[in-house]
Amino acid sequence: MTAIDDLPVRAELRGTSPYGAPQLDVAVRLNTNENPYPLPEPLVRRIAERVTEAARHLNRYPDRDATELRTELARYLSRTAGHEVGTANVWAANGSNEVIQQLLQTFGGPGRTAIGFEPSYSMHGLISRGTGTGWISGPRRADFTIDTDAAAHAIAEHRPDVVFVCSPNNPTGTAVGPETVLRLYEAAQAAKPSMLVVDEAYGEFSHRPSLLPLIEGRPRLVLTRTMSKAFGAAGLRLGYLAADPAVVDAVQLVRLPYHLSAVTQATALAALEHTDTLLQYVEQLKQERDRLVSELTALGCEVTGSDANFVQFGRFPDAHAAWGRLLAAGVLVRDNGVPGFLRVSTGTPAENDAFLDAVRALKKESNS
Amino acid sequence: MTAIDDLPVRAELRGTSPYGAPQLDVAVRLNTNENPYPLPEPLVRRIAERVTEAARHLNRYPDRDATELRTELARYLSRTAGHEVGTANVWAANGSNEVIQQLLQTFGGPGRTAIGFEPSYSMHGLISRGTGTGWISGPRRADFTIDTDAAAHAIAEHRPDVVFVCSPNNPTGTAVGPETVLRLYEAAQAAKPSMLVVDEAYGEFSHRPSLLPLIEGRPRLVLTRTMSKAFGAAGLRLGYLAADPAVVDAVQLVRLPYHLSAVTQATALAALEHTDTLLQYVEQLKQERDRLVSELTALGCEVTGSDANFVQFGRFPDAHAAWGRLLAAGVLVRDNGVPGFLRVSTGTPAENDAFLDAVRALKKESNS
Repeated sequence: MTAIDDLPVRAELRGTSPYGAPQLDVAVRLNTNENPYPLPEPLVRRIAERVTEAARHLNRYPDRDATELRTELARYLSRTAGHEVGTANVWAANGSNEVIQQLLQTFGGPGRTAIGFEPSYSMHGLISRGTGTGWISGPRRADFTIDTDAAAHAIAEHRPDVVFVCSPNNPTGTAVGPETVLRLYEAAQAAKPSMLVVDEAYGEFSHRPSLLPLIEGRPRLVLTRTMSKAFGAAGLRLGYLAADPAVVDAVQLVRLPYHLSAVTQATALAALEHTDTLLQYVEQLKQERDRLVSELTALGCEVTGSDANFVQFGRFPDAHAAWGRLLAAGVLVRDNGVPGFLRVSTGTPAENDAFLDAVRALKKESNS
Repeated sequence: MTAIDDLPVRAELRGTSPYGAPQLDVAVRLNTNENPYPLPEPLVRRIAERVTEAARHLNRYPDRDATELRTELARYLSRTAGHEVGTANVWAANGSNEVIQQLLQTFGGPGRTAIGFEPSYSMHGLISRGTGTGWISGPRRADFTIDTDAAAHAIAEHRPDVVFVCSPNNPTGTAVGPETVLRLYEAAQAAKPSMLVVDEAYGEFSHRPSLLPLIEGRPRLVLTRTMSKAFGAAGLRLGYLAADPAVVDAVQLVRLPYHLSAVTQATALAALEHTDTLLQYVEQLKQERDRLVSELTALGCEVTGSDANFVQFGRFPDAHAAWGRLLAAGVLVRDNGVPGFLRVSTGTPAENDAFLDAVRALKKESNS
């Protein structure tokens, strides 16, 4: 039998594993920050209608520029993120991962570098590697917030071509304010100039307003978003960015032609028609997220404040062992490799209760 | 206003344009090798059913490995391409462009090179550039067939990491036989060893059998396919490959996690249930394609033999001017930049008649 190593794969891929959380069949799955609420049935029906219409023209290539979808995404952002943007400011792709890949193909790549402040969303580093972009691991404080001085200093020292700021930060949970972004943008401009990408995948769950207004007058600032979390549509794979129209023009130089299928565009447009209902689920999830933070704290856990739909909690002498104990109790959470900590996604109230019960039992055991 | 050049885009992207045929509103569109037949209504209904089911779980990430879809694609290939393959032999992505991108990220990339025999599918070269892979333009005979000796010689000389053979070749039309592929595979192994990718996007339209059986015992041979053409689903963006399971394992090291949406998987599965009906359309298109070849020849055109759903025809003193004349007559064909030639997709009988009338008028003009 042929093994991967018998093939001429690139040297840096040898010995690596495909990225992704274990997909296990467990009663309570709180490991991938999915929205626990299925789409409401009227939206499911609307998706069927719009996809039926799209399917009647499926022999034709989709709208290569996804103009209607970008227009509706721009309308959604204008209404909810505190800043007016138009179609020309927005670009969409198959998940924010593909958006990030396109940004790195355009502004990173061989001979260039990107920096992130870790622990953070590990795909920033992995997609950098996948696009031949050198990866620099920048600092974060022990409490997982960004030390703006240290971060600006790292940018000045390494002069990266792309700077990633994840806000709210995955997997730790907290968002940054505009003053941090402005300071890092200035540092990035002074160093090179380079692109600053703010990943707001969990933006709708934050206590802070979106950083979107900052793109005004800053053509090298990019904000990325996704429909996976707030729109309850992880299965749809729809990510997008908002930035100066020149950034949208630039990523089109590397996007694969017709990258976004007609069924994806139709489904996303249907979901955008139901924004108000979906944002009500977000409000429920924020309340449950806040309950998780307070109950975990009451249980004696060390909890990182959360602006996202997940909560980082610890501190465990052996986080992976704790992960296994929770799994044995029927609750799947995420071990992101942050020493001493695990991450739990906000589920339904019943799922969160099951999770809290499992943590309670774990605490009791370890104290006995 | 900010321009692309005010941004730190990679040097090799400066001055380039996004790839893609002009999307013009013309009565007869025969420029992008789409299938002219809309999906049959029972299939449209089945897509709506399967997408409805998928939409009820859209809050969850899709099956990351697309196992059911890969199983059905393997069944389809086993039944129609003359060789038994299983789920482990097949990988799927958003269009064969993404499959090719993943192959180049795995086996090409910075410091490596790929070769194609041109004129051929221009995305092979463009995706090479997009992944930092050096591109080598290999030779083709004046009649657009591959000169196997010259091609093997080019492989020995340049020692590329990836060799592309497009069969049937886009935009010229002819397919190669197994003896050519075997010879080039040997040349590629002797030189490095390197990967040989046979792009069979138009395979179902060929007079020749698929080259799929050749993957047996040849772990560095990859065959790519698409549902865009034979399945009449260009809007779906579903490409796939068949190869040794080690190749499938290898591309998973670079694929973006959850790259294939649940709605895409559901729609593709619905289409695969209707394979027999869709292949009847392929038979009709092959007959019409053969009619285009004979009628264009009768009109005095120089026609490249075609195994695809399109026909290359000429010879025009100024192919782009001829393209404009046909467009003025309401028929959009493709100018691929092959000197003296244009490419027409096979349409419905009525569309083909309109096209042939326009060519007849063009010929009459130029003879008067």
